[in-house]
Order: sequence, then C-alpha cells, then structure tokens
Amino acid sequence: MNKKEIAYTQYLSQTFDAMARTGLLLSSTDGKGKNNIMAMGWGVVGIIWGKPVFMVLVRPSRFTYELIEATRDFTVNVPSRELEKVVSFCGSTSGRRCDKFKEQKLRAIAGKKVKSPMVDECLVHYECRVVHKNDVVASELAPDIPTMFYPEGDYHRFFLGQILCAYANDELPPSFVSARR
Amino acid sequence: MNKKEIAYTQYLSQTFDAMARTGLLLSSTDGKGKNNIMAMGWGVVGIIWGKPVFMVLVRPSRFTYELIEATRDFTVNVPSRELEKVVSFCGSTSGRRCDKFKEQKLRAIAGKKVKSPMVDECLVHYECRVVHKNDVVASELAPDIPTMFYPEGDYHRFFLGQILCAYANDELPPSFVSARR
Repeated sequence: MNKKEIAYTQYLSQTFDAMARTGLLLSSTDGKGKNNIMAMGWGVVGIIWGKPVFMVLVRPSRFTYELIEATRDFTVNVPSRELEKVVSFCGSTSGRRCDKFKEQKLRAIAGKKVKSPMVDECLVHYECRVVHKNDVVASELAPDIPTMFYPEGDYHRFFLGQILCAYANDELPPSFVSARR
Repeated sequence: MNKKEIAYTQYLSQTFDAMARTGLLLSSTDGKGKNNIMAMGWGVVGIIWGKPVFMVLVRPSRFTYELIEATRDFTVNVPSRELEKVVSFCGSTSGRRCDKFKEQKLRAIAGKKVKSPMVDECLVHYECRVVHKNDVVASELAPDIPTMFYPEGDYHRFFLGQILCAYANDELPPSFVSARR
C-alpha cells in the first residue's frame, strides 16, 4: 500500500479511537532480522522537550521489552477494523515462540528512520526513537489500579519515543476518517 | 461563555497545535481559595489503565507543583491566539508572588469534578485527577536533553491525570477549529 507522510496530529482522534476499540500494533526488532508485534491498548501522544512523542507501556516480562531495550526504537501501527483478529492474536501469543508477521501473513516494511519495521496492512504509522524511559512507581498508583492491573507486580516501563515520522495510507476507509466514539 | 461537554479526543489536534504555538494554561489550587495558572508547552494525552489521561510535567521548584501535590488535581485550558500575552505572563511570573487570575483579569470557573478551577476565557478545557506520578530519570535521557533543559538539575515530575471531563465553548473561532500546523 502506498503511504504518505503526515503531521503526527492529523489522525490522532482516529488513533485513540482505534486504541480503545481494537488496540494498536507496537512493532519492534532485535536489529538482526527478528521482528515482533505486540497489541497495545494504552499509550499517550503529545509534546515533551519540544519533541512530538508517543509514550508506550511495556511489562518487563514481554519479548517486546527486550527488543526495545536492545534497539531503542519502535513503531506504532493503527489497524483497520478488519484486522481485529490479527490484533487479538498478537495480544495473546508471545513473539518468543513464533514470528507473528509470518503467522498472520503480515508484511514488514522498513521504516525511514528506525530499525523497527512497520506493519504494511495498517492505516497509520508512527516511527519512534526512545529518548527517555522510566517505570511505574507502585506506591504512587491510584487505589483501584494495582489490584486490577498488577496482581503479580509486573509493573510497566514507560518508553518515551520521539515521533520521527508519521504516515498514512494514500487511501483510507471513510469510516476510519470520520470515526468518533 | 457557555461550555458544552465533549469527547476528550474531539479537539486534540487543535490542543497540540495551541500547545506548540502559544502554550496551554495549567490551572491548580490549594483548595482554600488560592488558585494558580502555569504556562505549559509540553504534555501528552491518551489512554492508560483504560482511562483517558493528560500527563503534565512540573518542576519541583514551581508553585504549581506544591498545589498539585496538595490537591492531586488540575485543569488544562486551551487559549485562543488572542491570549498569547496572558500565556506569556503566566509563564514568566510565579503564583507565589501574585494572583494571576486577578492580575490578568481572568475568570476562574468551578470544575464539575475537581477542585482546580478552569480559565473561562479559554476555548477548550480538561478536568483531571492525578492517578499516578513519577519522575524524570536523569540517566535515561537522550544526550541532547539534559544540557538543553536541565542545566540546574531541576528534573520534572510527571503528573498523570485522568481526564474526568472535557469541555469546549459553544462557539469556537473557525480559525481554531480548522487549525493545522
């Protein structure tokens, strides 16, 4: 699919709608040919240190954690509604055990600025380089959060990625462009 | 000005455009009648722990830091272009020394869900309650950041606020609604 460069703010509402509805795809690599995809339902976008940023949360137990620690970059990919099952697969299988691109017949396309690939079948993409990371502080969470999300104490690391490039497909489904929750 | 409730995603592009252009206004209170406003050029929005969130950065030296630590809430207010001088004043004067609402003839209106007031003259507003906080880790910053932003080691605290309500003026300037950088 042909992709064009966009302002990172252009499809933000749609990106958040997709994140809440099906989840996004976080792609990473070991830089030696092994790529991975993780489903992500959480993330924040904006400006920090004068840079446009996409901050993602990854648990230390995840394969993606290892990969981002190694290469310090990632891409965020916004799927169409039709990729719901792909997102679900990526969220329930570890990349340590299988190549999710291959299993789900997805095409990994090279980023312009980062080592991590983009998922060609998605509609919108953000290429990000890590400029900071820090961790969830257990004692500083609102009371309802630990029991619901951290029963085993596997607290997330926040990876703060500078958005180096954002892209969208030349043609986007009208239902995606006009989507409002 | 009459305000109506909106989805937090509705004016995100415009919020980020305003953040990059003039800055936003971060309002807080001690809960006992003393309110403050800080100019903010950085912030991120999205979903974490299933909640819509606005994460803001505040240095420990700021008066706003004390206030948010005390009440654990804040509002983010998006100014029109006409408020550029107000933002500039709020970014260069400490609330310890003056009441910025009074000095700048701004109207503090009560939030529905938080103690911190909203700045009536702004166009879009987000009411937020702190659900987490953590700090910039000096050793994990990209090489260009410390010299540029932390020559005195005054590292920011990240306050992660759940967006409880978002509002916009009933009438918005067309130039605001259509704004794209």
